[in-house]
Parts: sequence; structure tokens; C-alpha cells
Amino acid sequence: MNMNFKEIIALAQDVIDKCGFLYSPNNLYEPIDYAMRMGGKRLRPSLLLLAADMYGAPLQDVKDVAIAVELYHNFTLLHDDLMDQSLVRRGKTTVYRKWNSNTAVLSGDAMFALSVKQLVSAHVANKDRVLEVFSRVALEVCEGQQLDMDFEQRDMVLMEEYKEMIRLKTAVLLVGALEMGAFCGNAPAEDVELLQAIGTHLGYAFQMQDDLLDVYGNFDKFGKRQGQDIVDRKKTYMLLKAAEMLPEKDGRALSDMYSSHVLSDDVRVERIMGLYDKLNLRSVVESDIDSCLVQILPQVDKLHASAEGKTALSEFITSMRHREV
Amino acid sequence: MNMNFKEIIALAQDVIDKCGFLYSPNNLYEPIDYAMRMGGKRLRPSLLLLAADMYGAPLQDVKDVAIAVELYHNFTLLHDDLMDQSLVRRGKTTVYRKWNSNTAVLSGDAMFALSVKQLVSAHVANKDRVLEVFSRVALEVCEGQQLDMDFEQRDMVLMEEYKEMIRLKTAVLLVGALEMGAFCGNAPAEDVELLQAIGTHLGYAFQMQDDLLDVYGNFDKFGKRQGQDIVDRKKTYMLLKAAEMLPEKDGRALSDMYSSHVLSDDVRVERIMGLYDKLNLRSVVESDIDSCLVQILPQVDKLHASAEGKTALSEFITSMRHREV
Repeated sequence: MNMNFKEIIALAQDVIDKCGFLYSPNNLYEPIDYAMRMGGKRLRPSLLLLAADMYGAPLQDVKDVAIAVELYHNFTLLHDDLMDQSLVRRGKTTVYRKWNSNTAVLSGDAMFALSVKQLVSAHVANKDRVLEVFSRVALEVCEGQQLDMDFEQRDMVLMEEYKEMIRLKTAVLLVGALEMGAFCGNAPAEDVELLQAIGTHLGYAFQMQDDLLDVYGNFDKFGKRQGQDIVDRKKTYMLLKAAEMLPEKDGRALSDMYSSHVLSDDVRVERIMGLYDKLNLRSVVESDIDSCLVQILPQVDKLHASAEGKTALSEFITSMRHREV
Repeated sequence: MNMNFKEIIALAQDVIDKCGFLYSPNNLYEPIDYAMRMGGKRLRPSLLLLAADMYGAPLQDVKDVAIAVELYHNFTLLHDDLMDQSLVRRGKTTVYRKWNSNTAVLSGDAMFALSVKQLVSAHVANKDRVLEVFSRVALEVCEGQQLDMDFEQRDMVLMEEYKEMIRLKTAVLLVGALEMGAFCGNAPAEDVELLQAIGTHLGYAFQMQDDLLDVYGNFDKFGKRQGQDIVDRKKTYMLLKAAEMLPEKDGRALSDMYSSHVLSDDVRVERIMGLYDKLNLRSVVESDIDSCLVQILPQVDKLHASAEGKTALSEFITSMRHREV
């Protein structure tokens, strides 16, 4: 039916909002219901529904796949918050903090199981392909999270290693959402390939912006402290770009300071943000994100989908540039 | 080809032993490989291969499903050990203890994802039914684990509640293994129903015996302390049976002692085991297990499978009665 991008986002929100998970035993399902109601952009179900709609798939059936993907994504957040000991997400207390570690482990596991069950029971075209994509992506996201944790322990990582990490941690699920939607709509093979390239670039841009917002975001909406990635010693695009821009000696000094366990977190955040400011890193990274997004639009144009569908996808991609959270 | 039960067990062992999981990133996969090499009875893949073989399914293909089920089962053990803070399993250091909590969380998640991927890529008959069983069971096992943890916090649970807990925590995966194997072999619907009943009883018997072995097992082989369930305040068949056998007042005293946070663990284990001994609980429970297993054999006889296949299943069930670990 080719909805515009705002209608797709509203549909994704509505589909997730209408889900209830308060089954028995209550101690297992209440945290799942809570996690699914914490809000969020519903980016992955939106991309999935958008791709499916572009190829005329019946969204009434596809929405079960969209729910599965959002369940899976929120399961990863729930376990990431536990592993990172994050207290707040989207302005709300994290599950591990509101309940306890064991609840985060087990309710997270059950969310993953729910997502598989939800997907297996969906009635969509090319179900085997959809399952193949989902199961491959589900594993790759774990690999990406492991690299992210590995990198926290290292003094410095290369830009290439960072890219591989965010490809796995972030991009593959966006790609997977587009692919699954496309398969549900019987999209031609060339289009699936184009969507893989589109999703990958979108994933890079999305993560670069996440990294940017950690330092220059709107912290009322963001619900976490400014520079949390610096506190956690996460290897971000901000850090790697700054290191690239500095003379080698200064780059090494930056990574020493970033990894330091001698300086307090507040001092580290202040000094590193001061350096980012001096390098005018905000606009440098914004322009990197823009060039990444600009590369996507000609790919969208090549898709064998309706003009309205392609417009919806292009507008969706462009709209992401202006997100504050 | 109708193998006998010892051949099936040897095949299941061999199939799992030949799996390697040392992919990259190493920090994610090394604990998975370790967990899969910790040993174990390979009960679930054995049941699955046995059921498949009974109906003439090609085991070369079915073994991918068997590996998926064993991966899933070992994922649950890995997370259970983390939640229970267990130091040792099968005489070896648990993953959470050998590495750390985050490794246990993430490598466990990846094991679950691997099991889904392994299953999705298997080439077997009735794949949709196999996936349906797997995804339902994967969620139910989480529900069972939640009930088990809930019960630790309660002073007393009813025998019926205990049965529902072990049905979910233990029986459904044994049932699922039999069902999946049967679907791979195009078993008739009546046989699938019979196998559900067989697996459920087997699950009860298996868990009752687990509970028994916690007190009266061979602790050299068992690799954990005698009475660990008592230490953990797990509601076991031993406890509930003892409470049933005692006059109401004494039963209440037992549950008070079981839940006590005043007495030391050693004193609690000693007193409760003394009471079990006085009630001659070992032989009472052994006879309960026997009557549970005896109920299964006539059901096996009703299956529309080869005589050799039914003999293999009967002998397999009988052999479980004599396990020490």
C-alpha cells in the first residue's frame, strides 16, 4: 500500500505498543513487558515494515516478524545494560537495576526465545530465508558485542577494527531488518543486495551518530550522562577520528588519557571533550555522517520498487540525520 | 537403520565431540567450545537421534538438529550456573567462574544464537514442525528456571507446583527432543502424542533421580558437593516427599529448617540428610522413580515403529535408572 515514512514509523510504534507480555510466571514476564515499554525509536521494525511495504507484502502478517526483531533487539539491550552495569536507558531504570542481575539474565533469555517463537509462528513469504537471515544476524550481533567489550580492554584500536565491530554490533541487524522485509515482499535478488549495501551504510552512519550524541547530544532526552562512552572507555568513532586528526605523538597521548585508570572519570571526560572541541570534532563527524548517508540515496534509486516506496526509504534515511536521541 | 541404544548414545557422543566452535572472536567462542567439551550424558541428542532412527530418518541430516538441541541445553546450563553462582559442573570449573559473569552472559547468548542458526540450516523433513517445537520448548525452559528460582524464595511449595516446575525446566526439552526426532522421521501423529507422554514421564523420573543423586549420588563422579540443593534451598522431590511423609507439624518444622538463614549450611545439610535417612527416603524415592519409569514401557510398545527401535527406546529408558551422575 506504500505508506510514507512517517506512517511507517507510526505503524511500527503502534505494533509494538499493542504487544503485551504479561504472561505467567510474572517474575519472568514483567521485566520483558517493562523492557518493551521503555520506548525507543523502533528503528528496526520500521525498516522491516518499510522494506516489506515497498514490495507490497501484507503488513498484517509481516508485523509478527517486526515484533520478533524488536524483541531480539531489546533482549540485546537488556543484556548489554547488565554487562555494562548501566543504570539508565532512555531515561528509565534498566532491568538489571530495577530487579537484579539474575532477572536480567533470565528475562533476557526468555525475550530471545520469545523472538524466535514469534518469528517461527509468522505467516510470511520466504519464511526459510527470513529465518536464515535472523539466525545469522542474531549470532553476529553477539560477535559485535564481544568485540566492543574486547576493545574496552585495549589501549587503541584501528579504524578498520572499529568498523568491523559496528558492522556486527549495529549494521547487520539494520541490514537484516531490510532483508527480512524484502524477502517477505518477494523482492528480486538484486534488490536484496542493494538493501544490504544500504543497510550497512545506514548502520555505520547510525553508530557514528550514536557516538556523536554521547558527547554532543540532548541529555534531557538522552537519559544518560554526557560522555558515558568516555567513562566506559568505549572505543568510539569520536576517539578514533580525533586520533587520526592529531599528530602521532598527540594521538598516543590521547589514547593514554582515554585508557587511564589514574585520572578520575570527570577529569577524563572534561579533558577529552576539551580536545574534541579544539579539533572541532562535532562538525567533522557530522560531515562524515552526511557523506555516509549521501552515498546511500543513489542506491535507493536503483531499487526495483515503487517510486513512493523509494521516497519513503530515502526520507526515512534523511530523517535519521536529525535525531537527537 | 535401527541402532541399539548403546550405538545411539555412542553416536550422540561422537556427533557432539566432533563439533568445534573455536571461531572468531576468540573471547566469545572459547567458552562455548569449553562448555560443549565439559562432557555430559548427551541425553537430549541421544533421545532425538533414537526417535529419528525409529522412524527411519537419515541420521546424517538429523544430527544437525541433535547438535542444536545440545547447544541449547548447554546454554541453559551456562546461564543457570551463573545465576546459581555454581563453581563446578561435571567436575570442571564453570564458565562464569573460569572467565567472568559477562563472558557467561554473552557466550551463553551466542550459544543460544548458534543453536537457532544450526537448526535453521538443517535439512530435515517437517522442518516447520521441528522449529515450532524447538521455539516453544526454548521459552518453556526459561519459564521452568524462573519457577525454580521463585521457589527458592518460598518456604514451601506444593507437590503439584513442583511437578509443573520440573515439567517446564526438564521434561519439555526431553519431550521436544523425542518430538523433533519423530518429526524428522515423518512419524504418525498418534506416535508424536505417545512420545509426548513418554518424554514427560521420563522427564519427571530424570529430575527425581537428579534430586536423589544430589543427596545419595557418587560425588567423585558428580563433581559437586553432597546436598548442594539443600545449600541452595532448592525445592526438590526429596524435600516435598519427606514433608508428605511426616506429620503436618514435623513437615512444617522441616520446611522451616530448610529455609533457615540462622543455621549454617553444614548444619542444615547434616540435619536434613539425617531426617531423610530416618525416613528411609532413598528407597522410597527410588521406588517412586521405578513406578514412573514402569508406566512408560507400555506406551513405548504402542508406537508404530520397528520392534528394534522400540527395544532401543525401552532399553535406553531402563538404563537411565542406573545412572550415577
